[in-house]
Amino acid sequence: MDEISKRTFLAAGLAATLPLSARAAEPGRKLGYAILGLGYYATKIIMPRFAECEHSKLVALVSGTPEKLKTFGEQYGVPESHRYSYETFDKIADNPDVDIVYVITPNSLHRVFTERAAKAGKHVMCEKPMATTSADAEAMIAACKKAGRKLMIGYRSRFQAHNIEAIKLIREGAIGPVRAISADAGFTIGDPTQWRLDKARSGGGSLMDIGIYSLNAARYLTGEEPVAINAFTSTDHSDVRFKTVEDIVSFQLLFPSGATANCYSAYSANFNRYRATGPKGFVDLDPATNYEGQSMRVRLNGQTSSREPAPQAKNQFSAQLDHLSECILTGREPIVPGEEGLKDMRLIEAIYRAAREGRTIKV
Amino acid sequence: MDEISKRTFLAAGLAATLPLSARAAEPGRKLGYAILGLGYYATKIIMPRFAECEHSKLVALVSGTPEKLKTFGEQYGVPESHRYSYETFDKIADNPDVDIVYVITPNSLHRVFTERAAKAGKHVMCEKPMATTSADAEAMIAACKKAGRKLMIGYRSRFQAHNIEAIKLIREGAIGPVRAISADAGFTIGDPTQWRLDKARSGGGSLMDIGIYSLNAARYLTGEEPVAINAFTSTDHSDVRFKTVEDIVSFQLLFPSGATANCYSAYSANFNRYRATGPKGFVDLDPATNYEGQSMRVRLNGQTSSREPAPQAKNQFSAQLDHLSECILTGREPIVPGEEGLKDMRLIEAIYRAAREGRTIKV
Repeated sequence: MDEISKRTFLAAGLAATLPLSARAAEPGRKLGYAILGLGYYATKIIMPRFAECEHSKLVALVSGTPEKLKTFGEQYGVPESHRYSYETFDKIADNPDVDIVYVITPNSLHRVFTERAAKAGKHVMCEKPMATTSADAEAMIAACKKAGRKLMIGYRSRFQAHNIEAIKLIREGAIGPVRAISADAGFTIGDPTQWRLDKARSGGGSLMDIGIYSLNAARYLTGEEPVAINAFTSTDHSDVRFKTVEDIVSFQLLFPSGATANCYSAYSANFNRYRATGPKGFVDLDPATNYEGQSMRVRLNGQTSSREPAPQAKNQFSAQLDHLSECILTGREPIVPGEEGLKDMRLIEAIYRAAREGRTIKV
Repeated sequence: MDEISKRTFLAAGLAATLPLSARAAEPGRKLGYAILGLGYYATKIIMPRFAECEHSKLVALVSGTPEKLKTFGEQYGVPESHRYSYETFDKIADNPDVDIVYVITPNSLHRVFTERAAKAGKHVMCEKPMATTSADAEAMIAACKKAGRKLMIGYRSRFQAHNIEAIKLIREGAIGPVRAISADAGFTIGDPTQWRLDKARSGGGSLMDIGIYSLNAARYLTGEEPVAINAFTSTDHSDVRFKTVEDIVSFQLLFPSGATANCYSAYSANFNRYRATGPKGFVDLDPATNYEGQSMRVRLNGQTSSREPAPQAKNQFSAQLDHLSECILTGREPIVPGEEGLKDMRLIEAIYRAAREGRTIKV
């Protein structure tokens, strides 16, 4: 099957009828990524990780800063023909080397660039939070659906070994039914001029940026969707960093099984951990969702011990990049599609609402 | 000064005018305790600890079970004249060897025995929770006040070295202003016939029994009183253990300074820990409020390390017993008087109400 007929075949959804063995991505076949937005996360964390990818390669760059295009273009061997400004970005439609656009801009731009990428015929990887509102998230899903392109959200922890092991242990019943999750994510934020602290560009404060890890973890650890939410926010608005966005959000989730979660999101406290506890023990990660350094402890059969998870073939970043490529190559849906991002967006809105209205929000 | 004039002097509140050095309890002077209620906590945990007390001795026993009176009377050298049934208890008024009655019964009996002890002219130590309702707690405070006797609640963690160190570190500003406290207390409860699982005797489920440690810790770590509360309860009432009381309570506290707390109380999950986090670091105890084995980690100046607290002269149980004796001998108020227990009772009622009504309760 040549590439075009393969794509047509896969796009028609027929791949789902193939035996599993036939659906693995062809070894060595790499899809081309354009990185859109050349900030810290893109240039320091993501771009170096293409080197370890099996099905993904960096082929294009998009930035509003010509110097960045030059610097990183030269560093990664991306020719001028594959460097785009935000003005020229739509011409990426004519570049057959680009299969996927990875949107790593301030949150308020996620929607417009996802829509433009889809319109240009490209698949989209979009950083979390998916957007600044659930309405934008819905529009992004619709745009990709209309274009017949995949949309995946950058929930890298789903590809991280310790997190995968935590989910596996819980699903296997190691701790019994999950009764209580504590999940705390926060850091002390610095530069008050950064976009994260400007609500117009971020959509919100710590919850949008870092608390979303606690929220998402509570959902993937339980495997359930919350039905009720409580929340407080606590922000010193006289602090120059918090003129327009919130600092602390403490929120609680109640799940259909009776599992519960107590979560923190913070821009004035350093923590990154979660623990899921059931009648038979607990699974504890601290740190839990950092870029690296995850550490796991479990309590099983009355004994607490460190646990090294089953090794994963790739680091979380390369695995995330390759997952979308593999899904495209084999016609499957990503495990964290746009719909997953939309769920978090709706819950984030419900959390803000619970805090604002001082009542339990049923979702 | 002889004993009687000393008591009169102290009761008149004149001790407060003495220089501090004169207010230390006379070395070797021991007040006599009657233990009321000879269950596990009384006989296995408290009674053996009089041996390490400086100002307290076990002189009387009160129980509804004659065999227990005999067994423990013989074990601790308490003569028959100093053994009481619940029917004969009021005669303790005529026993000058007894200064203090320590009430360690099921919660629903705390009020009546505190009132009877006060009426008999004895000071009272009462286990937590102070009562099953705040109205009962108020009545207990009034009864002791009327009788001119002291009332202290058994908040032993306030006398435990790691907890004392945690409070000290926070008050000294080691972690900066407290922003977020996580406090989890729970265990998997067994025997469904025990009084703790019978609302008529316990007043409530895990929150009354074990979650109160999380609540109290959030208050002593911040040194503040909460102004708003959110909560969920989660209970499988088909479980034979939870016919009348709740299992999980997850509750959130908001304090005037902006400090917040996310707390767990559970009868189906084992945990006993807290962490207070501020911009400069954290103080973490795990376990935090157990009978023994406390372990502390701190994060200060960007470094996380174990910390051994300043040693305390006595274990938490002996120190608690001696604290009330010393307060009586020197005319001071206990650091955890009835009013402290009443605060927790009112907050427990607000937590239940927040969960029941599905809204933020302002207190």
